[in-house]
Amino acid sequence: MGSDLVVVTPGMGIGPEVSLRALARRRELWPRVVLVGRASALAAVPDGPPLVEVRGLCAAPRGLALFDPGDRAEPTEAAAVRAGALACLQGRAAALVTGPIHKGRLAARGFPFSGHTDFLGHLCGAAPVMAFAGGRFGVALVTVHIPLARVPQALTVEGIVHVTRTAARAWRDQLGRSHPRLAVCGLNPHAGEGGLLGGEEGAIIAPACATLRGEGWDVDGPVSAETAVMQAMAGQVDVVIAMYHDQGLVPLKAVDFGRTVNWTLGLPIVRTSVDHGTADDLVGTGRADPSSMAAALALAERIVARRRAQAGS
Amino acid sequence: MGSDLVVVTPGMGIGPEVSLRALARRRELWPRVVLVGRASALAAVPDGPPLVEVRGLCAAPRGLALFDPGDRAEPTEAAAVRAGALACLQGRAAALVTGPIHKGRLAARGFPFSGHTDFLGHLCGAAPVMAFAGGRFGVALVTVHIPLARVPQALTVEGIVHVTRTAARAWRDQLGRSHPRLAVCGLNPHAGEGGLLGGEEGAIIAPACATLRGEGWDVDGPVSAETAVMQAMAGQVDVVIAMYHDQGLVPLKAVDFGRTVNWTLGLPIVRTSVDHGTADDLVGTGRADPSSMAAALALAERIVARRRAQAGS
Repeated sequence: MGSDLVVVTPGMGIGPEVSLRALARRRELWPRVVLVGRASALAAVPDGPPLVEVRGLCAAPRGLALFDPGDRAEPTEAAAVRAGALACLQGRAAALVTGPIHKGRLAARGFPFSGHTDFLGHLCGAAPVMAFAGGRFGVALVTVHIPLARVPQALTVEGIVHVTRTAARAWRDQLGRSHPRLAVCGLNPHAGEGGLLGGEEGAIIAPACATLRGEGWDVDGPVSAETAVMQAMAGQVDVVIAMYHDQGLVPLKAVDFGRTVNWTLGLPIVRTSVDHGTADDLVGTGRADPSSMAAALALAERIVARRRAQAGS
Repeated sequence: MGSDLVVVTPGMGIGPEVSLRALARRRELWPRVVLVGRASALAAVPDGPPLVEVRGLCAAPRGLALFDPGDRAEPTEAAAVRAGALACLQGRAAALVTGPIHKGRLAARGFPFSGHTDFLGHLCGAAPVMAFAGGRFGVALVTVHIPLARVPQALTVEGIVHVTRTAARAWRDQLGRSHPRLAVCGLNPHAGEGGLLGGEEGAIIAPACATLRGEGWDVDGPVSAETAVMQAMAGQVDVVIAMYHDQGLVPLKAVDFGRTVNWTLGLPIVRTSVDHGTADDLVGTGRADPSSMAAALALAERIVARRRAQAGS
């Protein structure tokens, strides 16, 4: 099997400080981690682990490795993600863990993607699926960063099947849930209440669920999002398949903020991320909470360790 | 001041049993409560309090009063709500507490309203606002039971101002929060991210918030629904103003199921309700949880007691 190096891109805002604070607690990981980002931003964090500048994507023999991709044609934070993704694709690294980036500030510097996930989809030539794991329940999103008014027309049987199947495979193969249970949400209040409150459940979501059940997956749906989330809270469902951003992420953050990890599925690489933004107003105050980055590292480590164990068995 | 009688309409499915079980624990309320519903459904619940049939809307001297509105032109469950609402409007009762009804089954029996709230709006000649209180945070909904695809066009400055102002007044005047703090959600992911993910925030929601702030209300918004809910969970916000059903109710049920109460604002009467359905599969199993009905009774009692204290002072 290949490398088990974990590439961490600290990103922007509070990203460098939460990355270093999360890694300070996990000294046993240092021999397998390389930070990729601006050396000046990382060196500015007080009380961090000892950083050792390296000249490529490799760990350091003593301390925590830091690689600065330097002056490229793109912002350092984007160059870091690109370097990490390529290393994973080439087998020189096992996983990519990303801190927050600020889409507006990157866009102003010429970065043409709407965020990490789009950028990684482009780099990997694959359609990424945005999912969340590590907390009370899992979530995967059928649509993500589009206006709410465009959600109904963006739903297709194929899209729902793809996202649900990708999540089912990931929970089974990468997290070791032998029979993952998935609840597919309706689009409308009360999952359309038998057609009274909308027709997408009958026309699109139910056929997708039937296809998935035909493939042997344990899929319930379309169910109202309230029911799906309550079943997940009760441990009866592993993954809630949400039709749009707020349907899945608002309840998840209500119960799981800081514990849950943004996990990109559908790519040929392992990628986890914090589930918060750059929180620029907290930079340097010492109040930025590193628990989401710690959870992102832990999920990546869990997936890599599982793969290592399977390769060795 | 008028009557302090509380009218309880047990409704359908598990409604009778959760009503009787919740009231069994609150013996001190019996002299001020009358149940209105089918005597046969209520008598069929084992281990309930002693029921005393009465011939109108009044409490019983010993035991718990039960009034059966009998054979009317409409289903008994609807006749019960009508009788309770009229008694409140006429000052013969102080509050109406409703159990669940099954909209589909009532519609099949000729009931022309989409639910309690619409029916009460019709009876009271007012535009009701659906809100939830009694749990970790409050929620009020700008749109309720409409297909998601119709939500964007249903948003208006006037509608958002009306719902938010109604909620602000209710939390101040009926719950005694002298300066209620309200967070108005955006419609789109990340509240539209400065227009990148939708324009309703700038065109509709921000002007509504400006109007509300101009009236002196403590209104933050438009904010992303994730932020609004996390601030509410942290105790920094009293009421989350959600643009649509799932945006407000999915996170609320994730954290507060069984504690939160459906509270109808904007009517000239006090009305609270359970936040669950008829759960027909649980009828008679003894597993139906009475805590939502207990919370609905407690909220009605709190509002009535506050009004009584103010009238007496």
